[in-house]
Amino acid sequence: MMPFPLTLTHVLERCGELHAKTEIVSRLPDGSLNRYTYRDLYQRAKALGAAILKCGIGRGDRIATLMFNHHVHLESFFAIPTSGAVLHPLNWRLHPNDLAYIVNHAADRWLIVDDTLLPLLDAFKADVKLERVVVFSCRGSKAQSGFTDYEAFLETAPTGMGAPTPDELDAATLCYTSGTTGRPKGVAYSHRALVLVAFAMAMADTTAISQRDVLLQIVPMFHANGWGLPYAGAMAGAKLVLAGPGLEAATLLQLLANERVTVTGAVPTTLLALLEALEKDPDRARSCKGVRIVCGGAAVPPELIRKLDSYGFHVIQCWGMTETGPMATSSFVKREFEGVGVERALGLRATQGLTLPFVERRLRTPDGLAPWDGRVPGEIEVRGPWVAASYFNDPGAAGSWTGDGWLRTGDVATIDEDGYMRLTDRIKDLIKSGGEWISSIDLESTLMTHPAVAEAAVVSVPHPKWQERPLAIIVRKNGVAVTADELTAHLAPHFVRWALPDGYVFVDSIPHTSVGKADKKKLRVDYKDWQP
Amino acid sequence: MMPFPLTLTHVLERCGELHAKTEIVSRLPDGSLNRYTYRDLYQRAKALGAAILKCGIGRGDRIATLMFNHHVHLESFFAIPTSGAVLHPLNWRLHPNDLAYIVNHAADRWLIVDDTLLPLLDAFKADVKLERVVVFSCRGSKAQSGFTDYEAFLETAPTGMGAPTPDELDAATLCYTSGTTGRPKGVAYSHRALVLVAFAMAMADTTAISQRDVLLQIVPMFHANGWGLPYAGAMAGAKLVLAGPGLEAATLLQLLANERVTVTGAVPTTLLALLEALEKDPDRARSCKGVRIVCGGAAVPPELIRKLDSYGFHVIQCWGMTETGPMATSSFVKREFEGVGVERALGLRATQGLTLPFVERRLRTPDGLAPWDGRVPGEIEVRGPWVAASYFNDPGAAGSWTGDGWLRTGDVATIDEDGYMRLTDRIKDLIKSGGEWISSIDLESTLMTHPAVAEAAVVSVPHPKWQERPLAIIVRKNGVAVTADELTAHLAPHFVRWALPDGYVFVDSIPHTSVGKADKKKLRVDYKDWQP
Repeated sequence: MMPFPLTLTHVLERCGELHAKTEIVSRLPDGSLNRYTYRDLYQRAKALGAAILKCGIGRGDRIATLMFNHHVHLESFFAIPTSGAVLHPLNWRLHPNDLAYIVNHAADRWLIVDDTLLPLLDAFKADVKLERVVVFSCRGSKAQSGFTDYEAFLETAPTGMGAPTPDELDAATLCYTSGTTGRPKGVAYSHRALVLVAFAMAMADTTAISQRDVLLQIVPMFHANGWGLPYAGAMAGAKLVLAGPGLEAATLLQLLANERVTVTGAVPTTLLALLEALEKDPDRARSCKGVRIVCGGAAVPPELIRKLDSYGFHVIQCWGMTETGPMATSSFVKREFEGVGVERALGLRATQGLTLPFVERRLRTPDGLAPWDGRVPGEIEVRGPWVAASYFNDPGAAGSWTGDGWLRTGDVATIDEDGYMRLTDRIKDLIKSGGEWISSIDLESTLMTHPAVAEAAVVSVPHPKWQERPLAIIVRKNGVAVTADELTAHLAPHFVRWALPDGYVFVDSIPHTSVGKADKKKLRVDYKDWQP
Repeated sequence: MMPFPLTLTHVLERCGELHAKTEIVSRLPDGSLNRYTYRDLYQRAKALGAAILKCGIGRGDRIATLMFNHHVHLESFFAIPTSGAVLHPLNWRLHPNDLAYIVNHAADRWLIVDDTLLPLLDAFKADVKLERVVVFSCRGSKAQSGFTDYEAFLETAPTGMGAPTPDELDAATLCYTSGTTGRPKGVAYSHRALVLVAFAMAMADTTAISQRDVLLQIVPMFHANGWGLPYAGAMAGAKLVLAGPGLEAATLLQLLANERVTVTGAVPTTLLALLEALEKDPDRARSCKGVRIVCGGAAVPPELIRKLDSYGFHVIQCWGMTETGPMATSSFVKREFEGVGVERALGLRATQGLTLPFVERRLRTPDGLAPWDGRVPGEIEVRGPWVAASYFNDPGAAGSWTGDGWLRTGDVATIDEDGYMRLTDRIKDLIKSGGEWISSIDLESTLMTHPAVAEAAVVSVPHPKWQERPLAIIVRKNGVAVTADELTAHLAPHFVRWALPDGYVFVDSIPHTSVGKADKKKLRVDYKDWQP
């Protein structure tokens, strides 16, 4: 067989050759739409790559991006890795101190930034050393002095310059974890890993993405390469719709309708907002019919799946993390469960499902490996060709891997005999009450099925006798009243008595991390002195 | 990223773990059905592998199979490569002399054979050296002395034996070309190549195969690993139906109906027979609704696609050859052609389509590379990670590759600006008339749209003035009369005058090669003295 490398270079060439006329639509920070084609992407990415190389950026050098989801960011997604350099997309939701830490830790040489994000750059620029800052002015104005203008920079590209041929094991992109536990850590994805996860994601039981699809990119592209969706979409030749900074429901519904979107990906928080908008204005559901939604980043409550289904969406729950490429599982109803009825099928789809091909997993308990019986929980350990073997320049973090090389994910789950995995908690979010484990996620999912509850987070609070006890933090729906006793009555049929929360705190909003998950670290600190 | 190899070992483990309950149905040579599950496949393939290793079969050793499509053959497909050995499926349609040549050339150490194929083995056994012959008795009787009984051999498997871990670049299977030009040549597929082509074939625009599918394996498994369908099906966890030796239409229609088949693959000859059966008994079409058919091995006439569509099938034309894994392209209607109408869409599907991701192609003419304008034909050259870089132990055949490492396919085609490839001929089947090329395939396709024509083959015959001229060999449909003048009138609107055949020969049947293509080499010899 030919020694043909699995690199993004082929994916880019393919876009220019086979999908030249297919559209890429971007919603820019000012709300305007940019429309162009894969041919434009190809030509501009080639120009950006050539211009970068001409300036002496070498193999393995890091170039950071601080951009929303749009075509210029996509150009970096292809130009930087195919030049042999490493794309490092930054999370614009982080605190400037964290951004400075990450840029310094990654030793980024350059930054490409949206002009609308320059105020954020200003807040940490003094703390980092960047050789060059390239500014994309979405309104078409020229960059200020001290910065390189993106469009002018493209024009400096030499023509006829030979492109390098990256090795498939070379790092292509670098993404940092959101740092919910300790300092953010970097994961360097090889070309090979990105190509393989794109193939696995494209499979019929995950996204089933085809050339005839229209992919709406909601997940920020800094978030584990936008969950790999831009690469999978480009490999399939799907029309791409890049949502820009606008993750509010009204914008998304407008894009869904106007661009005839057929597939997208989002975290539960985004989908909850979408649902709320649809409930207010059910007429907008016309454009949701048949749209597949890959949902991940946190366990998806069954009620959310049921309600989105009722508007015509098809939710496909996936599980993974920055360290797993990120996509490691997807949930679908196996053929042998055809005809089991709506509720059982929903129950299967509400699990985190089955591993994608080439991802392997096992469950670790203090007593060894857990059986796949759907009952015994254990920490998920995984391995596979798009799973990190280490953190970038962080040998001290080797404890995240087992002695035989599996990743310790920190997620706790059960797996049943059919392979369906059900998250029960994060190891650190488990409530250890009197030697028993109480799952915060199970309590939250059930609380969120109560009609008065908009959002729920359950955290541990210290207890003198039981070590830890569960406390529920509740956001009520606008204008709907509910009492603690009513919520206990709602939970009681589903849980043993000692697993019920000791109390309920009603709040206006729950703090979220930069990737939209309930910030339990903060909640535990806020409520550490809570008393019944 | 973890150094996780792309091997069939993972695919087999996955089958045992995630798809344990999914069914594998085999039609045995005696017509009976064997039903078992992926769990059985897993356990028996592990036993076969262990038993093989215990006997001293080592890394890279070849084990041949001479079997129809059934579960025991599938066990070899997994057991042999995951043991580090090389599976070599033999074409039971070949002449015994060719089989002897191939077994000797491959230096096969063992053979696993169906008892019903022992008479074929007898015809070449004296000419080959096999250390061991393992016989699968489909009727359950024990193998004769001198042979190893398959079921008894499985029972010799030691338990708890550590399995080897093949490297992804190790050869997994070895398939020989059907030798339409010269001696058969071997192509050794690496584990990596088989895994990657399975991923590419599983994509939505090719087979879209999912766990919920039922795959009917019609293509003989010796034919480029059964076109890779068994591996793609197993990776997706689809229910498999292995059709045994029965490729006649009645058997296939029965399996389609009884097993609720959703996807299959076949050569045009098989589909023509299927169509004939359906035309006689249209009631049988009920089970064809929505069944995807991957069709390849020869250009698929548009009329065949149209008629199969009318019975509810969906034909996906693919192109490739033993040397290309085999699947290299698939044809589908791109999003930008939505709404162009049925005829134009059919025209696109009747091309050989677009390359799968990671396959690259170009067109070679005597004057250099041909543009992608849909008009200028050239020989297709390809490269990619599942394309052969050489023939097995055949350095003399290096001329099949260009100096820069692309495979010379011997197929001539045009490619249009959208990337759709249309085969015009085999280089050797082109009719070179007075310095112009006449495509035999175009003439055949149009002849086969005539209602009286069951099959047509157009070959060159020597001509004193024009060097070569086209002659059409025609099989008429039962009891339907048609004259040469009528056929010329049928062709005339579509061809320039000098491209029309000089004559027509009406025959009862056309000779076919072992893979079901018209045997033009024989026809050219048979009609070399033909005179108008």
